[in-house]
Amino acid sequence: MAQKPSIPKGTRDFNPEQVAKRNYIFNTIRGAFETFGFQPIETPSFENSDTLMGKYGEEGDRLIFKILESGEYFQKVDRELLERWISLYLVNVYLFKDIFDYLLYRINRTNYAFQSKEELDFYSTDKNCIRYFNLKVDEWVSFLIDSPQVSHKYKSFVKGRNSKFILLVSDFIYQHGLDFKQKNQDKKIINWKLDWANRQILKQFSNDLTSDFEDILDSELKKSKKDFYNYLNKEISGKALRYDLTVPFARYVVQHRHEIELPFKRYQIQPVWRADRPQKGRFREFFQCDADVVGSKSLWQEVEFIQLYDTVFSALKLEGVTIKINNRKILSGIAEVIGAKDRLIDFTVALDKLDKIGEEKVKEEMLSKGILQSGIDKLQPLFSLSGAFESQINGLKSILSTSKEGLKGIEELEFISNAITKLGLQTANLELDVTLARGLNYYTGAIFEVAAPKTVKIGSIGGGGRYDDLTGIFGLKDVSGVGISFGLDRIYLVLEELNLFPETVNKNIDVLFINFGDKEALFSLKAIKQLRANGVNTELYPDKITNSKHMKKQMNHANKRGIPFVVLVGEEEMASNTYTLKNMTSGEQLKVNLEALLAHIK
Amino acid sequence: MAQKPSIPKGTRDFNPEQVAKRNYIFNTIRGAFETFGFQPIETPSFENSDTLMGKYGEEGDRLIFKILESGEYFQKVDRELLERWISLYLVNVYLFKDIFDYLLYRINRTNYAFQSKEELDFYSTDKNCIRYFNLKVDEWVSFLIDSPQVSHKYKSFVKGRNSKFILLVSDFIYQHGLDFKQKNQDKKIINWKLDWANRQILKQFSNDLTSDFEDILDSELKKSKKDFYNYLNKEISGKALRYDLTVPFARYVVQHRHEIELPFKRYQIQPVWRADRPQKGRFREFFQCDADVVGSKSLWQEVEFIQLYDTVFSALKLEGVTIKINNRKILSGIAEVIGAKDRLIDFTVALDKLDKIGEEKVKEEMLSKGILQSGIDKLQPLFSLSGAFESQINGLKSILSTSKEGLKGIEELEFISNAITKLGLQTANLELDVTLARGLNYYTGAIFEVAAPKTVKIGSIGGGGRYDDLTGIFGLKDVSGVGISFGLDRIYLVLEELNLFPETVNKNIDVLFINFGDKEALFSLKAIKQLRANGVNTELYPDKITNSKHMKKQMNHANKRGIPFVVLVGEEEMASNTYTLKNMTSGEQLKVNLEALLAHIK
Repeated sequence: MAQKPSIPKGTRDFNPEQVAKRNYIFNTIRGAFETFGFQPIETPSFENSDTLMGKYGEEGDRLIFKILESGEYFQKVDRELLERWISLYLVNVYLFKDIFDYLLYRINRTNYAFQSKEELDFYSTDKNCIRYFNLKVDEWVSFLIDSPQVSHKYKSFVKGRNSKFILLVSDFIYQHGLDFKQKNQDKKIINWKLDWANRQILKQFSNDLTSDFEDILDSELKKSKKDFYNYLNKEISGKALRYDLTVPFARYVVQHRHEIELPFKRYQIQPVWRADRPQKGRFREFFQCDADVVGSKSLWQEVEFIQLYDTVFSALKLEGVTIKINNRKILSGIAEVIGAKDRLIDFTVALDKLDKIGEEKVKEEMLSKGILQSGIDKLQPLFSLSGAFESQINGLKSILSTSKEGLKGIEELEFISNAITKLGLQTANLELDVTLARGLNYYTGAIFEVAAPKTVKIGSIGGGGRYDDLTGIFGLKDVSGVGISFGLDRIYLVLEELNLFPETVNKNIDVLFINFGDKEALFSLKAIKQLRANGVNTELYPDKITNSKHMKKQMNHANKRGIPFVVLVGEEEMASNTYTLKNMTSGEQLKVNLEALLAHIK
Repeated sequence: MAQKPSIPKGTRDFNPEQVAKRNYIFNTIRGAFETFGFQPIETPSFENSDTLMGKYGEEGDRLIFKILESGEYFQKVDRELLERWISLYLVNVYLFKDIFDYLLYRINRTNYAFQSKEELDFYSTDKNCIRYFNLKVDEWVSFLIDSPQVSHKYKSFVKGRNSKFILLVSDFIYQHGLDFKQKNQDKKIINWKLDWANRQILKQFSNDLTSDFEDILDSELKKSKKDFYNYLNKEISGKALRYDLTVPFARYVVQHRHEIELPFKRYQIQPVWRADRPQKGRFREFFQCDADVVGSKSLWQEVEFIQLYDTVFSALKLEGVTIKINNRKILSGIAEVIGAKDRLIDFTVALDKLDKIGEEKVKEEMLSKGILQSGIDKLQPLFSLSGAFESQINGLKSILSTSKEGLKGIEELEFISNAITKLGLQTANLELDVTLARGLNYYTGAIFEVAAPKTVKIGSIGGGGRYDDLTGIFGLKDVSGVGISFGLDRIYLVLEELNLFPETVNKNIDVLFINFGDKEALFSLKAIKQLRANGVNTELYPDKITNSKHMKKQMNHANKRGIPFVVLVGEEEMASNTYTLKNMTSGEQLKVNLEALLAHIK
């Protein structure tokens, strides 16, 4: 093998069977989306980095795949970027070296700094020296920038710098410039260990000034580093692969707001990419299937989304999924009631573990996070919440009686629950789960999560919620959004495990024509044309039979691929304008005309 | 606006209507692919860079979008990459500086080089010096690599270098090291302008040696640069976005060769990305729709692909497309006959312009490219080729009578043409075009291109051909492939221009329920559930009417979106269990029960 081919970790090839199974799920979801009034949009695979960066937290930013600028970027990098690298990393070498060179040049050639012995003496004292440069610094900087003697590197370093910093550096150099002039200038340079020696000399020079200088140098270096990274990112990567479908949708709504009629119900089924560590069921490229509505705060949307989940999973014959629901306002309300409003995240993280670690450990964790015992005591009714939706609601009401926000959350939940009770669900169950907190940072109202039937050990197969300010990140305020997502890969695993894919999902070839020779092939293709026009998936074996082995090979080909019918056309069939049809399962063989052939296969 | 949202140039958002129209084309193509026996596969959006780079020529490599390694890459780059940058770009500064420092150290501290005055004199002559280092160079290199006095930078530079290069550098430094020792060592260093002065001194040192040295230095720098780019590419980008579907398909076939039953007919409809300059009809993200067969050299495949083109374009009602066909063997044959076998590309490029610039100019261009007049004279029959397929074939036969390869090409063309004549085409025309040369570098047999009906000014809307060694790039020899591709974006433009999209293509909402209040909404949703279960795309307006303006707003919403039916449910309807159905086109209004409602809308 010249090159052993493989694909990047976390990505997948899909063979025909897998594609067919995935399409079965996609088509089911798409069909339901459309009957519910959602319309498809598509957005580009990559967005401008600005659009994505900073929208998913620091961790998210790290997991976004950035795209290098097209082929030309090395040319750019060669010149500009190199200058930056050097000015950043070698700054403490070159900075002093350049300034020093410049000063030597000034001192030796033009006598610019000192007009007389008196002036030289005057500037030799620390204070006067600083004062002098303080006055001259702007003039000096512009001289530096214009001077052909000063390197490009240093010029770009000087531009936009803190002038106190420049002053200090200049002053330091000026001092030592004098020093050199008076002593053995050449020898001094040889022993010049700029990277560390400068600071040593600076310390002798003035303790205050040195510490000042070092602080400024540090902050300049940090700034320089940050600038540099921003620059590098912009220069070599201004685009990034889509991380989810929500942010691109928000961007779409704002960008096309004049073409969109609100409320806008859209669905989007496209791949997203995340530089996550790949593991079972977690990939670096995977599809999201999202439906969202923007532009309405009506709770009927939440009702509709629960119906939508029920419709899709019922259509997939995946019965018994649990649609969990919670409300951000209830979590906020509880935190408020127990005096932990500023510890909402700690509180919900601990509460979320109730199922796993039990009541006592949850309480311990809350205590350890600084939630008061008196507050935790008030939570007691929460731990005994159970049973039907309504009885849980009543428990919550007693806990939240003093929280306006909490009561609002209960009201929303009740509205949704009542509507669902009256409308009914086909196969799914709706369950209140006050520990549900996914996407807490984004959601402002309802929070959804769908669990597979309990027999299947797998994480959630769907989720969503309401965010009151979806498009705010792009400057369009007060557009409420609510949406849900289907986890294709996990749904696939569940259907596979429960053997729920329909047998007919893999659209195989219906019939293969054996190729006995060119005349026979031509005769066959005429029939094939008719079969195809009637929607029958038909193939002619491309290579003709020239010996008995070939015949076996072609029949084997049909067997290996599980093709149900084979047609044989020889001299006899051509003469009588018929086709020999072989049922590969039963072995039964029939000689029929074209019409009968079609009828048998269809 | 906080941030004006936009998308990267060359990419597109698709609104619901555009998605529907694109899906109409996709579905038509997909349907035809499947009836012709092709099965779908999907490959990841990004491949390992190794898989793609070098497969599309230099221009192609430049147009491949590379993906940055995930978030952590700066940490890597900080240390390792910097060293590389420096060793590459500052090599002519640091290299000499380091070696020089080392030699000074040796000379001053250990007296390693010279045991006596005699030895020193001995090595001071050019020849002896070189001989000495010639012997010592390996020893010296390993000393350098082990020595703590030698910087990491130089060590990594020395490793794996051309030893003659090291020898020359060492020798040069050695010479001048002696020089320094004897003269004013310190002063010498100060004036040391390494970047250019070294070469000046070298020239004095020995003309032969210098030119030798410079050649080697240049080639080392070039190598260094290439190494560095490869390194950079690997470090910061090991993945790249798919550039076409053919190379990933070849990779797929080789990687999964044990699971695939040959001949393998696959189709693939996925986006590809190219960092091309965007222009009208040319995008940086676009879909390709490819069907290929691998593992058979049968010409029936070519026949099938022509039928497939005809089937798809007929199904799209795009009548009168021209399927142009040529054969690489004919082009090679003609070039052979006119004695321009080594100028095949120049020859075909010129011939390709026949339509645009005419016979005389084509001949001029061929002459200017070094094709002999006597050869061009032999082409005469080619210029008068016209008319039906068969008469063109006859013309070609007379030209190619002496070329075995050319005659083979004619034979292939005749086979295909005869079969197509007998099978017939629905709406397309098959045309021989000896000037057709697309993908000349890849194709080995048939070459296809599809032109839109002549009334539409647009480039080709499809193309393909046969490549005898598709998978050879991945080490699997002798697997012939033949395939075609459909240009989605151009087909879209053609259908748009000719107004060929079916009116029903945009699956709109069928019916909107006006929301008069919560009770009415609930009543409505029960009906909506039934309608949806019957495949009717139905929506409830989410917000309820609380004043007369709202009513107008909801009706307007239906109008703006072109929704054909609206249902109104008020107290009266609820009491009588009926629905008021309004036809938004005719204005007609009916009060009906659920059954009648469904019947009216369906």
